[in-house]
Amino acid sequence: MARNILWIMCDQLRFDYLGCAGHPTLKTPHIDALAARGVRFTNAYVQSTICGPSRMSAYTGRYVRSHGSTYNGVPLRVGEPMLGDHLREAGMDCVLLGKTHMIPDTDGMARLGIEADSLIGVRNAECGFDPFDRHDGLHPSEHPGGGGEAYQAYLRAKGYEGDNLWEEWTNSADGPAGERLNGWLWAHSDKPARVAEEDSETAYLTDRAMAFIDSAIAKGKPWCAHLSYIKPHWPYLAPAPYHNLYGAEDLLAPVRSESELADPHPLYEAFTQERHALTLCREGGRERVIPAYMGLIQQIDDHLGRLFAFLKDRGIADQTVIAFTSDHGDYLGDHWLGEKYLFHDASVKVPLILYDPAPEADATRGTTSDALVEMIDMAPTFLDLAGAPPKPHVLEGHSLLPLLHDPKAVLARDYVFSEYDFAADQVRIKLGTSVQESRLTMVFDGRWKMIDCRALPPMLFDLESDPDELFDLGREPGYGMIRARLFDAIRRWYHDGRNRISCADTDFTQADDLLRIGADPVLKQGVVIGYWDEAELATAQALFARAGG
Amino acid sequence: MARNILWIMCDQLRFDYLGCAGHPTLKTPHIDALAARGVRFTNAYVQSTICGPSRMSAYTGRYVRSHGSTYNGVPLRVGEPMLGDHLREAGMDCVLLGKTHMIPDTDGMARLGIEADSLIGVRNAECGFDPFDRHDGLHPSEHPGGGGEAYQAYLRAKGYEGDNLWEEWTNSADGPAGERLNGWLWAHSDKPARVAEEDSETAYLTDRAMAFIDSAIAKGKPWCAHLSYIKPHWPYLAPAPYHNLYGAEDLLAPVRSESELADPHPLYEAFTQERHALTLCREGGRERVIPAYMGLIQQIDDHLGRLFAFLKDRGIADQTVIAFTSDHGDYLGDHWLGEKYLFHDASVKVPLILYDPAPEADATRGTTSDALVEMIDMAPTFLDLAGAPPKPHVLEGHSLLPLLHDPKAVLARDYVFSEYDFAADQVRIKLGTSVQESRLTMVFDGRWKMIDCRALPPMLFDLESDPDELFDLGREPGYGMIRARLFDAIRRWYHDGRNRISCADTDFTQADDLLRIGADPVLKQGVVIGYWDEAELATAQALFARAGG
Repeated sequence: MARNILWIMCDQLRFDYLGCAGHPTLKTPHIDALAARGVRFTNAYVQSTICGPSRMSAYTGRYVRSHGSTYNGVPLRVGEPMLGDHLREAGMDCVLLGKTHMIPDTDGMARLGIEADSLIGVRNAECGFDPFDRHDGLHPSEHPGGGGEAYQAYLRAKGYEGDNLWEEWTNSADGPAGERLNGWLWAHSDKPARVAEEDSETAYLTDRAMAFIDSAIAKGKPWCAHLSYIKPHWPYLAPAPYHNLYGAEDLLAPVRSESELADPHPLYEAFTQERHALTLCREGGRERVIPAYMGLIQQIDDHLGRLFAFLKDRGIADQTVIAFTSDHGDYLGDHWLGEKYLFHDASVKVPLILYDPAPEADATRGTTSDALVEMIDMAPTFLDLAGAPPKPHVLEGHSLLPLLHDPKAVLARDYVFSEYDFAADQVRIKLGTSVQESRLTMVFDGRWKMIDCRALPPMLFDLESDPDELFDLGREPGYGMIRARLFDAIRRWYHDGRNRISCADTDFTQADDLLRIGADPVLKQGVVIGYWDEAELATAQALFARAGG
Repeated sequence: MARNILWIMCDQLRFDYLGCAGHPTLKTPHIDALAARGVRFTNAYVQSTICGPSRMSAYTGRYVRSHGSTYNGVPLRVGEPMLGDHLREAGMDCVLLGKTHMIPDTDGMARLGIEADSLIGVRNAECGFDPFDRHDGLHPSEHPGGGGEAYQAYLRAKGYEGDNLWEEWTNSADGPAGERLNGWLWAHSDKPARVAEEDSETAYLTDRAMAFIDSAIAKGKPWCAHLSYIKPHWPYLAPAPYHNLYGAEDLLAPVRSESELADPHPLYEAFTQERHALTLCREGGRERVIPAYMGLIQQIDDHLGRLFAFLKDRGIADQTVIAFTSDHGDYLGDHWLGEKYLFHDASVKVPLILYDPAPEADATRGTTSDALVEMIDMAPTFLDLAGAPPKPHVLEGHSLLPLLHDPKAVLARDYVFSEYDFAADQVRIKLGTSVQESRLTMVFDGRWKMIDCRALPPMLFDLESDPDELFDLGREPGYGMIRARLFDAIRRWYHDGRNRISCADTDFTQADDLLRIGADPVLKQGVVIGYWDEAELATAQALFARAGG
């Protein structure tokens, strides 16, 4: 039987909130065991610091500057090639369980006459996946049509009562007088959700994954399943018993310094004034929120333990490659910030574990890799696993399979890149930048991390001398050469963007043998350019014929 | 009656081969008269120096780095928005007569389930135009299916006999012994084509334009017609009497210097070794080819005189805006080069005349403008003429209408850009660059022109001290600051690329009034991010309600 791919993605899970990543108190034994069987990447970067664009990069294998979905809610343009398109060509199903944050390009689909309910229409609306169960989380009453119908139906079948069961049960807690407390509010993060743990979103999605796997076994075709949990993303509200497994004593100390607030970069300063930053940094804020965040992570770990046992029970554990990662991090009060958006490691670096059960990967089991990897490497890795040829004219990442099979393998990458578009944020109003100027580009070479802020000075951090990224050197004299080199790297990165998606690189090299001997490839079409007379043309035609053109 | 747009494009017509552009011997009285009625732009640049990508930029209003069709034969990706899409939204027909060099993205269309013979399929295969008569020229026998069926049928109906009538009549001359001479060969450029002038491509396309206009008058709907001549592009073979209107004495002196060949840039040197360059620069080469090139231009001028008289005769001359331009130039032996590809003005600068019959344009009639304009300005100009709102998230140029209506108007542009992809050329083999590295980017600020050659040093010309572009300063010390500024301009140009085509800029600014007073726009969706407790949320909701959110 051909191999399957189980691609597990958490939402807003920081790179360092796992036992195997060194967290001293958080318990994630099943994920740690996965790392012990596979390779854990310690320098894995997402291509944007918020859900939508980061995921569009994950699902297309392309940078944001290429796919163009720069922000949550920006539809992925119709026709942008997606992982599912590539895997299906290679004979592999590609299925969704959970969140994508995809917004379909309904205008583009209408312009091209694509019916929303056709198979092509559904796949174009679901990031190229066949949706087994799409569940994006966040189904407030004021936002009807946001999806989650299957989960709502599940809850109703289990006996939950109300109009919006997600809001009333999954995102609510019980108050002391029996009143319903709003789970969006971080003051309530120490309370349990009203929903039973077994009916929470993490449990539900894990059950759905098992149902999918059983259906796939019956179908007998190799698959790539994207199991995409919406947690530990806010609302920071965990079902019992996960709401109080951790306390203030279990927290990592915040990574921040008063010096960051002295003469700050205007963009950084504006983000420190955002509500989520102020709320997390208030007295007791982190102590209220982070234990729930940790509980939600441990809950995922427990369910992954259940799922990994299920794979073994079904006899397909040794045929199933597992990838575990996240779409971006969470500042959690580090750098006086909440949420994500900017490019400190807490936000832009994610956990990444790859487990390949094949004997070829035995040499790397339990190791870590500090190679500079990017989320756009997932699609080429999966294509490689499916035995499909690479598509370097479309996919902008690299297969990581060589790193799993050879401890000495080196990835051909000097820089990682990430982007964020703050045009819809209040920050743009404060800074007075135009919509076009409100795009940030991060470049990181393993030591120096620079953020190109377009109309504003850059930010620059030296992670060798300043691993906590506390000293912004972007406006400091003495670093001009470093900044110039990184600006050059950004220009070359733009230059090398894969925009010529309709034509393979090999289409440009297919005539190389003719060109090397000076023969004229277009003669075969009868197109005769730049010849003086019959004699010159006859000579060229003879050369062309001898070359077998 | 609403106004029409007649968009005339020549192929491979240099900026300086018109009487009104200062050519001392070439006669183009009808084009000169158009310039006297309109505005002639003396700094008009195309976005690529060969037909396909230059035209894809013209028809999409987007740079090559955005639309991705980097070379002749690279399909324009399906779903790329085109001029016709925008004009039809504004209630204007958009029709093709002649050449586009478009290659449809059949793989992409199949992936999206678009039938080639559906209306959407046809438009996606024809650059967004409704084809009244597509005629790309170049229909050699060895290249069946290259189009031109309607012209072939026309010739046959007129009594021409043979298999491939384009090749046997339009692209052949009679030899001294009655034999047929190959019109591709430049040695024969002094002979007349076998086809009668009235049946040549230029005459045929002009007739077809008149037929279209009569049909449009009957329909009564405003139109944009792209009349796209394939001349004076090679084969350099004119029908009588245009084959011998000019002689060696009518040629401009070649713009070139022996100093260009001393220590040349490797890329430039490689292009000077291409066959078309060597053939044009052979003894007597220019003298044989250029008179035919000039004759083909005068032929176009004569037919435009016929067409302009027709517009007047039909009573729509004062309702029809006319644009006259070309898709790129022709070195014609300047700089020891033939054809185009590189970025000297002979190649990348084109004629551009805009005539607006409206009284608002009276103040600029007969003037020239030295504003830096680009071919991607055509689409926004036409949208402006159609009364449609601009689409700055898609269209990367500017409407030139303000320049026609106000002699003091200034275009908000500091640089023009052009690109060329030499990956399919023998030059790549000689230089040993990779496919990805074989893309050139030109930036020009009105004085300094730099070509970013990616893996090779840049080229740099100072058009103030060296208007003929004979001295490449790209590797000269003392110009580092100039080069650094232009490299920065290229990076910012990439940064500002309009890749977010599925979402208007106004979608990002619609909540600005809320953001200015510190209200939280996503509250209207019930999405509650970063609030601590009920009191804080109630305050925010009250602010939101007061703001009318």
